[in-house]
Amino acid sequence: MAVGFEGLPQLFPVRGFRIGIASAGIKKPGRRDVVVMELAAGSVCVGMFTRNAFCAAPVTVAKQYLAGSAPRYFLVNTGNANAGTGRQGLIDAQQSCAELARLAGCSSTEVLPFSTGVIGEPLPLKKITAVLPQAIAALAEDNWADAAHGIMTTDTVPKGCSRRITLSRGEVTITGIAKGSGMIRPDMATMLSYIATDARIEQSLLQQVLDVAVGQSFNRITVDGDTSTNDACMMVATGVSGVLVEADTADIDLFRQAVIDICETLAQAIVRDGEGATKLITIEVINGRDVQECEQVAFTIAHSPLVKTAFFASDPNWGRILAAVGRAGVSGLDLEAITIHLGDVCIVREGGRAPDYTEERGAAVMAENEITIRVDLVRGTASARVWTCDFSYDYVRINAEYRS
Amino acid sequence: MAVGFEGLPQLFPVRGFRIGIASAGIKKPGRRDVVVMELAAGSVCVGMFTRNAFCAAPVTVAKQYLAGSAPRYFLVNTGNANAGTGRQGLIDAQQSCAELARLAGCSSTEVLPFSTGVIGEPLPLKKITAVLPQAIAALAEDNWADAAHGIMTTDTVPKGCSRRITLSRGEVTITGIAKGSGMIRPDMATMLSYIATDARIEQSLLQQVLDVAVGQSFNRITVDGDTSTNDACMMVATGVSGVLVEADTADIDLFRQAVIDICETLAQAIVRDGEGATKLITIEVINGRDVQECEQVAFTIAHSPLVKTAFFASDPNWGRILAAVGRAGVSGLDLEAITIHLGDVCIVREGGRAPDYTEERGAAVMAENEITIRVDLVRGTASARVWTCDFSYDYVRINAEYRS
Repeated sequence: MAVGFEGLPQLFPVRGFRIGIASAGIKKPGRRDVVVMELAAGSVCVGMFTRNAFCAAPVTVAKQYLAGSAPRYFLVNTGNANAGTGRQGLIDAQQSCAELARLAGCSSTEVLPFSTGVIGEPLPLKKITAVLPQAIAALAEDNWADAAHGIMTTDTVPKGCSRRITLSRGEVTITGIAKGSGMIRPDMATMLSYIATDARIEQSLLQQVLDVAVGQSFNRITVDGDTSTNDACMMVATGVSGVLVEADTADIDLFRQAVIDICETLAQAIVRDGEGATKLITIEVINGRDVQECEQVAFTIAHSPLVKTAFFASDPNWGRILAAVGRAGVSGLDLEAITIHLGDVCIVREGGRAPDYTEERGAAVMAENEITIRVDLVRGTASARVWTCDFSYDYVRINAEYRS
Repeated sequence: MAVGFEGLPQLFPVRGFRIGIASAGIKKPGRRDVVVMELAAGSVCVGMFTRNAFCAAPVTVAKQYLAGSAPRYFLVNTGNANAGTGRQGLIDAQQSCAELARLAGCSSTEVLPFSTGVIGEPLPLKKITAVLPQAIAALAEDNWADAAHGIMTTDTVPKGCSRRITLSRGEVTITGIAKGSGMIRPDMATMLSYIATDARIEQSLLQQVLDVAVGQSFNRITVDGDTSTNDACMMVATGVSGVLVEADTADIDLFRQAVIDICETLAQAIVRDGEGATKLITIEVINGRDVQECEQVAFTIAHSPLVKTAFFASDPNWGRILAAVGRAGVSGLDLEAITIHLGDVCIVREGGRAPDYTEERGAAVMAENEITIRVDLVRGTASARVWTCDFSYDYVRINAEYRS
C-alpha cells in the first residue's frame, strides 16, 4: 500500500472534459484498461513528453498529431506500452486513433494515443478497438475516479487531485490524475498524467504554466532512476467556464500555484506508491550556488541504492548520505562547512558526525514513514527539493515477477 | 557465494614484499582485520585513489604521505572505514601510522594507512595499535592468501590473482589481491587492491601501467553505482628480482598485459561477489563514435535497477535494456540501426524485437550465470566493456542489515 494513502480525494468534474472507461482484457480479464477522454471543441491542449530517445510509438504519434491539430480525444490503454515495437507499433498507434476518430466523427490527427505497460510486445489493437464504442457510450464528466483506476499498471492505488479556485472573473476547476510506480525518474517522470480545467487560457500561457509545474513536481521525483519510454503529461483547458485567465494578472498567479499544487501532489503520490516503497523521502539541498548543483546532489542521494536500503531498514546510516554528497560531482565543496539534517536532527557537521548526534535521535526520525534529508551546501542561495522512496524486498519482488 | 568462484588461486610470493596479519577484534572477535605490508627498501610505489570528494581520512593521509616519501609499510584495517570522522579521523589515521613507524623503525610518512568498513564511526585506534607487534612478527612473503582474507568486509570470498612471466632478462612475479562487494562503481571501484611485483621499474612507468590497467578493469565495474569514500589501488615494484622492465620494449608490453589481466580478474571477482549477486553480466557497447559514449550507454544499462532485477529473475525483458539505451543521453542515435544481442541471440533490431527472436531463445541465455549484453551503436569504431551483477533480494537484505 502506498505510503500515507488515505483514499482518492474528491475529484471535481471539469466542464467540457468527458471520460469513458472500458475493459479490453489486455493483460487481465475484466480489468479497466482503456480510457477515452473527450475535449470540448475549442479546448486548448498542451503536453510534455519523455526525453527517452527510444520513446514509444504512441509518444511519437501524439507529439506529431499535437503539433498539427487541436486534439478532441485522448485514447489511453494500460497493460501494453507499445514501446520497442518498431514500425508496426507506429502503425498500430495510428490505427487505434483512426478507429476512435471514425466512431467519434473527427479526424485521426485529432486523437492522441497513450500506452503504458509492458515494453516490447505488439499492441493488441483489436482488443482495444473492440471496446471503443463502449468507452464512448460511457463518456461523462464525473468519471475521473474511474479513469484514475483505468490508467494504473503496477500502481497499488489510484492518484488524483482536484482544486476549485475563485478568480476575479469567477470560479474555475482544475482536476488531475496520474499513474506511475516504476521506471520513474526525472525528465517526465509521470509516466502518464492528465490535468484538465474549465478555465479559458491561451495555449502559450498554458504551456508556460505546465512547464513550471512539471519542473517543480514530476521532474523532481525518482523511484529507480529509469526514465520511461512512455511518459506524457497532458493539460487541457476547455474554456467552458468562460473565466478567462490572462498573463501578468493576480489570476494567473493563483492558477499557476493551483496547478503546481496538483502536480506536486500527484508526483508525490507516485513516489508514495513507488514499487515496494515503505517510506516517502524528501531531499532538500539548500544554499547551493545554483539550482543545477542542488539538483545534482539531491538526485545522487535519491538514486543511491545504499541510501535507499538504509531507509528501508530504518537505519540512520548517515555515512551513506555523506558518501553520496561526496560523489555527486560538485567541485569545490567545502566539506568542513556542510551540514546534513535528518528531520530536525543534525547528523553531519564539519565533515563528521555532529557532536550532539546520537543513534537514538537518528533512529527516532527513521521510525517515521515520511522523512526529510536536508543538506546545506553553505555556498550560495539556490535550493532544490526532490522526492524518492526507499528500496525494499518488494521492489525486487515486483520487478523480478512483473512479466511472469 | 560469488558467481563462478572456484577457490582462491595460488598466489605466488613476491620477493621483497612481506605481509603480516593480526586480529584486533574491530567488528568481530577473532576476525583477521589488520594487515601490515612491508615494502623492501628501494621499492617503487604508485597508487590510485577514490574521487569521492568526501574521501576518508586514511585516503587523505595516504595521498599526502605518498607524495612526499617512498612508502615502507601499508597498514590496512577492515571493519571501520575511518570516513566521515572529521579532524579526529585524520589524527587517528596519522597516529596509527606513527605507531607502526615507531615499532618498525621508520618515519611516520613512510607508512600509508588504509581503512574499509562502516562509515562514520571513530577508528578504534587502540585496538589496532595493540596488535601491530603481532602483525609485524608475522611478516612473511607467503601470506598473500591470509591478506586476501584479512581485507574483506561484506565480501563472501577472498580475491586474488597471480602471474609469473618470463621477460628477456628473467622471470618476474606479479601478485594482487582485492576486496570489495558493495559501494562499487567506477572512478576507483576497487575499494582496496594491492598488487606487488619483484620487477625493477621506474615509478613513472609503473604509474602508466597502473593507470591503463585500472582504466580497463576497476573503473569498468559497478555493483550499485555508489563510489566509495575509501577506494585505493596500490602497486609496488620491489625490484628484488633484479629484472629491469623499461619503456618501449617487448618486456613492458608483456608486463603491462599481465597487470591488466590481474586487474581485470580482480575487478571481475569483485562483481562476481557483488552484494547479493547471482549473475556476472558483461556489457559490451561496440561501434560507437568514441569510448566515452560507449561507456555512457554501458553504465546506464549497468546501473538500471530494472535491468538488474530482470537478470535476477532470468527474465529476458529486453525492453528494459532498450529503454536504458534510450535514456543514456547519447544524442543522434539511429534507433533503426541499433542491434542488441543477449549472448548469441539478437533481441533488438530496427528499433523493435528482432524478427527471429523467441522468448525461449532469450530464456536459454538468461539461464546461464554469466551473460553478455552486446549493443551495436553502428556509428563508429569505438567500444567499451563494463561488468556488473544482478539485483537480488539478498542485495536488500545485506544492505538493510549491514550495521545491525
